[in-house]
Amino acid sequence: MAEQLLELHPDRFLGTTPESTAIAREIYAATRELPIISPHGHTDAAWFADNRPFSNATELLLVPDHYVLRMLYSQGFDLSSLGVESLTGDEIAAPRAAWRLFAANYHLFLGTPCRIWLDHVFHEVFGLDIVLNEDSADHYYAHIEGALQMAEYLPRAILDRFAVERIATTEGALDPLLSHQRLHREGLGERILSTFRPDDVVDPDRIDFAANVAALGELTGEDTQTWAGYLQALRSRREFFKSLGVRASDHGHPSAATADLDVATCERLLRRCLSGEATSEERELFRAQMLTEMASMSLDDGLVMQLHPGSVRNHNSYLHRTFGPDKGADIPCAIDFVNGLRPLLDRVGNDPRLTLILFTLDESTYARELAPLAGHYPCLKLGPPWWFHDSPEGMLRFRQQTTETAGFYNTVGFNDDTRALLSIPARHDLARRMDARFLADWVAQHRLTLEQASGIAIDLAYGLAKRAYGFDRGRI
Amino acid sequence: MAEQLLELHPDRFLGTTPESTAIAREIYAATRELPIISPHGHTDAAWFADNRPFSNATELLLVPDHYVLRMLYSQGFDLSSLGVESLTGDEIAAPRAAWRLFAANYHLFLGTPCRIWLDHVFHEVFGLDIVLNEDSADHYYAHIEGALQMAEYLPRAILDRFAVERIATTEGALDPLLSHQRLHREGLGERILSTFRPDDVVDPDRIDFAANVAALGELTGEDTQTWAGYLQALRSRREFFKSLGVRASDHGHPSAATADLDVATCERLLRRCLSGEATSEERELFRAQMLTEMASMSLDDGLVMQLHPGSVRNHNSYLHRTFGPDKGADIPCAIDFVNGLRPLLDRVGNDPRLTLILFTLDESTYARELAPLAGHYPCLKLGPPWWFHDSPEGMLRFRQQTTETAGFYNTVGFNDDTRALLSIPARHDLARRMDARFLADWVAQHRLTLEQASGIAIDLAYGLAKRAYGFDRGRI
Amino acid sequence: MAEQLLELHPDRFLGTTPESTAIAREIYAATRELPIISPHGHTDAAWFADNRPFSNATELLLVPDHYVLRMLYSQGFDLSSLGVESLTGDEIAAPRAAWRLFAANYHLFLGTPCRIWLDHVFHEVFGLDIVLNEDSADHYYAHIEGALQMAEYLPRAILDRFAVERIATTEGALDPLLSHQRLHREGLGERILSTFRPDDVVDPDRIDFAANVAALGELTGEDTQTWAGYLQALRSRREFFKSLGVRASDHGHPSAATADLDVATCERLLRRCLSGEATSEERELFRAQMLTEMASMSLDDGLVMQLHPGSVRNHNSYLHRTFGPDKGADIPCAIDFVNGLRPLLDRVGNDPRLTLILFTLDESTYARELAPLAGHYPCLKLGPPWWFHDSPEGMLRFRQQTTETAGFYNTVGFNDDTRALLSIPARHDLARRMDARFLADWVAQHRLTLEQASGIAIDLAYGLAKRAYGFDRGRI
Repeated sequence: MAEQLLELHPDRFLGTTPESTAIAREIYAATRELPIISPHGHTDAAWFADNRPFSNATELLLVPDHYVLRMLYSQGFDLSSLGVESLTGDEIAAPRAAWRLFAANYHLFLGTPCRIWLDHVFHEVFGLDIVLNEDSADHYYAHIEGALQMAEYLPRAILDRFAVERIATTEGALDPLLSHQRLHREGLGERILSTFRPDDVVDPDRIDFAANVAALGELTGEDTQTWAGYLQALRSRREFFKSLGVRASDHGHPSAATADLDVATCERLLRRCLSGEATSEERELFRAQMLTEMASMSLDDGLVMQLHPGSVRNHNSYLHRTFGPDKGADIPCAIDFVNGLRPLLDRVGNDPRLTLILFTLDESTYARELAPLAGHYPCLKLGPPWWFHDSPEGMLRFRQQTTETAGFYNTVGFNDDTRALLSIPARHDLARRMDARFLADWVAQHRLTLEQASGIAIDLAYGLAKRAYGFDRGRI
Repeated sequence: MAEQLLELHPDRFLGTTPESTAIAREIYAATRELPIISPHGHTDAAWFADNRPFSNATELLLVPDHYVLRMLYSQGFDLSSLGVESLTGDEIAAPRAAWRLFAANYHLFLGTPCRIWLDHVFHEVFGLDIVLNEDSADHYYAHIEGALQMAEYLPRAILDRFAVERIATTEGALDPLLSHQRLHREGLGERILSTFRPDDVVDPDRIDFAANVAALGELTGEDTQTWAGYLQALRSRREFFKSLGVRASDHGHPSAATADLDVATCERLLRRCLSGEATSEERELFRAQMLTEMASMSLDDGLVMQLHPGSVRNHNSYLHRTFGPDKGADIPCAIDFVNGLRPLLDRVGNDPRLTLILFTLDESTYARELAPLAGHYPCLKLGPPWWFHDSPEGMLRFRQQTTETAGFYNTVGFNDDTRALLSIPARHDLARRMDARFLADWVAQHRLTLEQASGIAIDLAYGLAKRAYGFDRGRI
Repeated sequence: MAEQLLELHPDRFLGTTPESTAIAREIYAATRELPIISPHGHTDAAWFADNRPFSNATELLLVPDHYVLRMLYSQGFDLSSLGVESLTGDEIAAPRAAWRLFAANYHLFLGTPCRIWLDHVFHEVFGLDIVLNEDSADHYYAHIEGALQMAEYLPRAILDRFAVERIATTEGALDPLLSHQRLHREGLGERILSTFRPDDVVDPDRIDFAANVAALGELTGEDTQTWAGYLQALRSRREFFKSLGVRASDHGHPSAATADLDVATCERLLRRCLSGEATSEERELFRAQMLTEMASMSLDDGLVMQLHPGSVRNHNSYLHRTFGPDKGADIPCAIDFVNGLRPLLDRVGNDPRLTLILFTLDESTYARELAPLAGHYPCLKLGPPWWFHDSPEGMLRFRQQTTETAGFYNTVGFNDDTRALLSIPARHDLARRMDARFLADWVAQHRLTLEQASGIAIDLAYGLAKRAYGFDRGRI
C-alpha cells in the first residue's frame, strides 16, 4: 500500500463552495481559539489526579472506544482480536497485533466521525503525517508509545495544551470521589469536576439495584428501605457531590417517561423494586417517578439536570454476556418526550430555578417535540446532538431542525460526552466548524449578518455552555 | 447598543451561491407580484367589517402572537410582563413597557421565522429602517402607533395594499357570522369569507361540548340529542356557512383517527359523550367517526375539508389555568395517518367529489405516509408546511420529502394560517422565495428547465390554492 | 402545445454549483461504464427465456408500472382509462387511447423519479428527442411500437446493451422456475437467476396460505401439516432454488417483528394458522417466527437474506377489490427494527455465516435504528433506499443519515428492485450520479480525497453488490 500523506485541510468542513466557505472561515476564526468548556463527559478523574502516562495506542485509542469497536465488530472482527478482555477469560490479541488489525481496516471508518477525530488526534496531537493503514501501523504504534512517555502527554499537560477551562467527569451516586477530592485539595477542583449520575441507585432494572440502595443507606446513614429515607439519602449524596464543586446531575433512562405519584404509591413501588417483585411496568414507573424527584431536588440545590434517554442498552445479549457493557451494542429507539415529560413539567416545569437539558437519539423528535418544548418551557434547554448524531451531518440536522422553533438561546453549546481524552479538541473543533458552516449558509442567503453570525458562533462555542451549567457564577 | 440598519436584501433566502441565486431570482420574479390567495387563516372578520384602526404595537404584534409569547416565556419572561391578561386578574405590564421588554430581547428571535416576518412588517409595512432593540423600542412604538391612525393602515386598506384576492377566516359551528353577513351585504363576501370549523360541537373533550351541542339544537331547530338530528343540525350549519360563500371546513383533531361505525353505535356514543360518561377512548372514537361524517357531508355540499391533526393542545397545565389557551403551549406529537385515515378512505376515499387537505406537525410522515397517500388517493392533497414548519428550512424539507412521491400537483399552494394580519405578505413572500430556491436547485442540477420551474412556481404561489379551494369556479 | 426538446444534460444531478459538479463529474466518470449488477428485482424470467418482442408502449411502460398508475389515479383518472384490466371485467381503454391520456398528463410527473427514468428510457433506449406530451403522444407510440419489433429490443439484447452482468428475478416458494431451468440449460443461469421469496407459504394473512402450504407438501413430499415437515419442505425448496444458482431469499413482511419460540409453540401456531383459527396477533407471531427460521436456514445453505418490511399492502380496499394487488395502493408505515429484530439477532445475529440485508420505507429509522444496528451486528447490512425513497433526494438522505454511523462498507450498493426492464440502466445511472454528488460534496469540504471518493464510488456502484450477494465467489 502506497504511503498516503495525512493532511488536515484548514478549511475542512467549512463549506462546499468558495463563497460560503469564505464566510464560514471568518465565523470560525472568531471561535477556533476559544477555551474548551467540557461540561459533560466520561473521562476518568484518576487520570488527572494521578497524572501518570498513558500506556500505548491500543489501550488508549482502541480498546476503550466503543465507536471503534462497534465498526470493526460489524465487519466480523472478534473483540478478542482487538485486545478486548472477555468476561470468560478468552485469550486476547497483544496490543501491537490488535493495533495492526485496526490499522489494516482503517478504511472502514471513511466517512465516520471516528476517523475525523482520530485523524485529528494523529495529526494535531501526535504530529503524524501519513495515513494510518497496514503499512504505517507499526510506525504509528512506536511513535505514539514514545510520545506518551513525554511530559507534554501527561493528562494535566493535555488539559493545558487543549485550553480546557472546565471538564466534568461522571460518577455514580455511591462513588466516593476520591480522585476529585485530591484534585480539590490541589486546587484543581474548579477546573475538573464530577457529575452526579444516580442511575445505579434509581434504576431497578440493574441487577445490583437493591445492593446499591442498601449501600446508599450505609453511606448516608439513612434508612433507604423507606421512601423518605431513600430520598433523604439521595439529597445527601447530591450535597456531597456539590461540596466538591459539582454543577449537574445526569440521567440515562430507557425512555423519557416521568411520573408524579402520591407518597403511598412511591413507598409501595420502592418496596416492590427492592424486593425484586416489581414488574417491568412498575420498574419503568419507578424510574419515571425518580426523574421528577430529581427535578424537585434540583429546585432546592441548584444542580442542572441532564437527561439522556432512548438507548436500548446492551442490545446484543451474546456480547453483553461475553464482554460486558459499553462495547458498542447500544441501539437507539423511538421516544416520546411530549407525553413522557408531562408529569415532571406539570410539577416543576414553570419554576425558573430548574434547568433540564434534553438529549435525544431519535432525530425525528428535534422539530416535532424538542424544539417546541424547549421553545416554550422556561426550564427546558436542548443539549447538542448526542452520540451517533455528534457528527458533521448530524450537527447540521440538529441546527436545521431545532433553530427555527427553539432559536439559538434555548440550546446549551457543545458537549463532547467522551471518554477519549485526546479527541476532546477534535470534537470541539468539529462542532465549531460545523456551526460556522451552518451560520455561513444563513449569512450567504442574507438571513443573518456576518456580525450576528459571529456573535452567535461565540455563544455556541463557549458562552452558552458556560451559562447553562452555571460556570459564569461562583459556587452554587 | 449601536444603531443597526434594518435592511431586507432583495435576494434574501434565494440561495447560498451566486449560480443558484441567479436562477432563483428569475423564478421568484415570476411570482413576487402575484395576488395573495389566503385560503386558510385566523384573522378576525370584525376587523374588515368594522374597518377601525388597530391600537398599538403591543396589542397588534405582541400580545396576540403565540409564536412570540412562547419564545419569551421559554427564556423566563412571565406573560404578565408582556401585557397578556391572566384569568386570575393579575396586574399586567402597560403596552409600552411590554414592548420595551420584547424589544430588549429581540435577539432571541434570530434564526426564527417570527423575526423574518416581523422584520418584513417593520420594514415593508411600516417603513422602519433600524433594527428593533432596547434602544429603538420607543421609536418603534411611537412610529407604529402613529402609522396605525392613518387610513392606509385600516384593515381593508391593508388587504388592498397587499393585493389580497381572497382571505378566509375561521369560525366555529355556532358562530352567527355577523361580520361576514355585513361584509356580504357590502359586496366583500366573495373576497373575505369564513371557514366552517365544527370542533366546538364535535369534540367531546371540550368542557362546553354538551352545552354547544344543545345550542346547536336551538340554532337549527333539530333534536341534537339524537344521532340523526345532530347530523342534520351539522348539515344545516354547513348550509348556512355556504350561503355566505364558504368553501371549506377545517378540523383540528388530536390525532388522524377516523372511524366508520354503524348507526346504533354512533347513537350510543353520542349519548355517552353528551352525558359526560364517555371514556377517553370513546371520546376519541366519537371524533374519529365525526371526521368520516364530515367527509360524507362534503360529498353532498362540496365543502373542501382540511385536517389539522397532531397537536397536544395546552400542554402546560399551569399556563392553561392561568392564561387560557393559545399562549404558545401547544406541542406536536407523533401521528399515524396510514392506519388513522383508513376507515374514512374506505368509505369515501375514491369519490372524486371529495377534497381532503392534510396538514401535519410530524415531519417524519412527509415521505413515509403523506406523500404516498396523496400520491395515490384521488381525494387527498397535501397542505403546506404547518405552524412550526412554516419556516425556510421547514419549507425546504416539505418539498424535498414530498415532491418525489406526490409531485407538485397533489399539493395546494401556501396557507398563511395566521391571525397576524400584517404578516400575511411576509409569509407569502417567504414561501414564494423558498419555492423559488427549491426549484432553482433542481434547475441548477438540470432536473427541471427554467421554464418548467417558473410555471410550477406560479402554480405553487397562486394557481394551486385557487383551484384546490374552488376559487376558480363560481359559488359552490 | 409547442414541441419541447428532450435533452438529458450530461451533468444532470451531479451538483448545483460549478465547483462540486466538477468534482462529481470526475467521480461519476469512474463508475458510469461499470457493468450492472442487479441483485434484486422483479423482471419476468420468461422474457429472457422466451426472448420475444415486447408489444407496445402502453403494455410495456404504463400498465405494469404502479408508480405511474398511482400518480394518475391520484389525479382522478380511473385505472380502466389507463388500460388496466379490472377483476370485474369493465371495459378498458385501448392501448393507444391510454397512452394519449398518460402523455397529456405527463407534466404531473415533473419532479418524480418516474419522469427521470422514463425520460432516460425515451431518450437513451428509444432515441426520442422531444418531450412526451399530448402532441407527441402518437409519435411516441408509433416510434416505440416500431422499435420493439427490432432485434436489438429483444429482452436478451437489452441485457447485453445495458451491460447487465447479473440480474435476479423473484419467485415464490412454489414456483417451478421453468424459465430459469431453460435459461440454465442455455448457459444463462449464472447471469439470470431467481430469488427465493417464500411469502406465499409463510404469511398466514394470505387467503391462499393453507392451500399453498398443502401444495408445498405435495411438491416436496413432506408432511407440511407438522412443524418439522413444514420446515423440511422449506429447506427442500431452498435447495431447489439453490440448484439453479440462487443466491438470496427475500421477505416482504408488514413489520420487522421476529420471534424465537419453542418447538411446541411453533407446532401449535402452525396448526392454528393452517386451520384459519389464528388471531391477527398469532398470524403476526407466526411470520415473526418464520423470519428467524429463514435466518437459521441461511446459516446452513448460505442464502443471503433480504427483508423488505413496513408496507401496508393494498391500503385502498376498493381498488384491491376491483383491480387486485400492486396498483399503487401500498402505503408505508412506521416500523420498529430495534425491538423487532432482537429475537432473531439473539439467536443468529453474531454468526458470521449470515448476511441479512435490511430495507426500510420509514426513513426515520435510518439514523436512529438501521445505521446503529448495521454498524454493530456482523450479519446486518443496509440495502439501498427502497421504493418511494429510490429517488435523488431519497438517496441523498440515505447517505447523509446512515454513513456516519454505518460507514460505506455496511451497505450493499444499489438494487433497482423493478419490473420495468427498460428503466434498469436509468435507475443504476441515477444512483451512480447521486452517489457521485454525495461524495463530491464531501470532497469539496475536504472530508474525503478525490481518490478515496472515487474508490468508494466504484464499490457503491459495483463491488459491494457483487460481494454482498456472493457473486465474487463461485456457486454457493
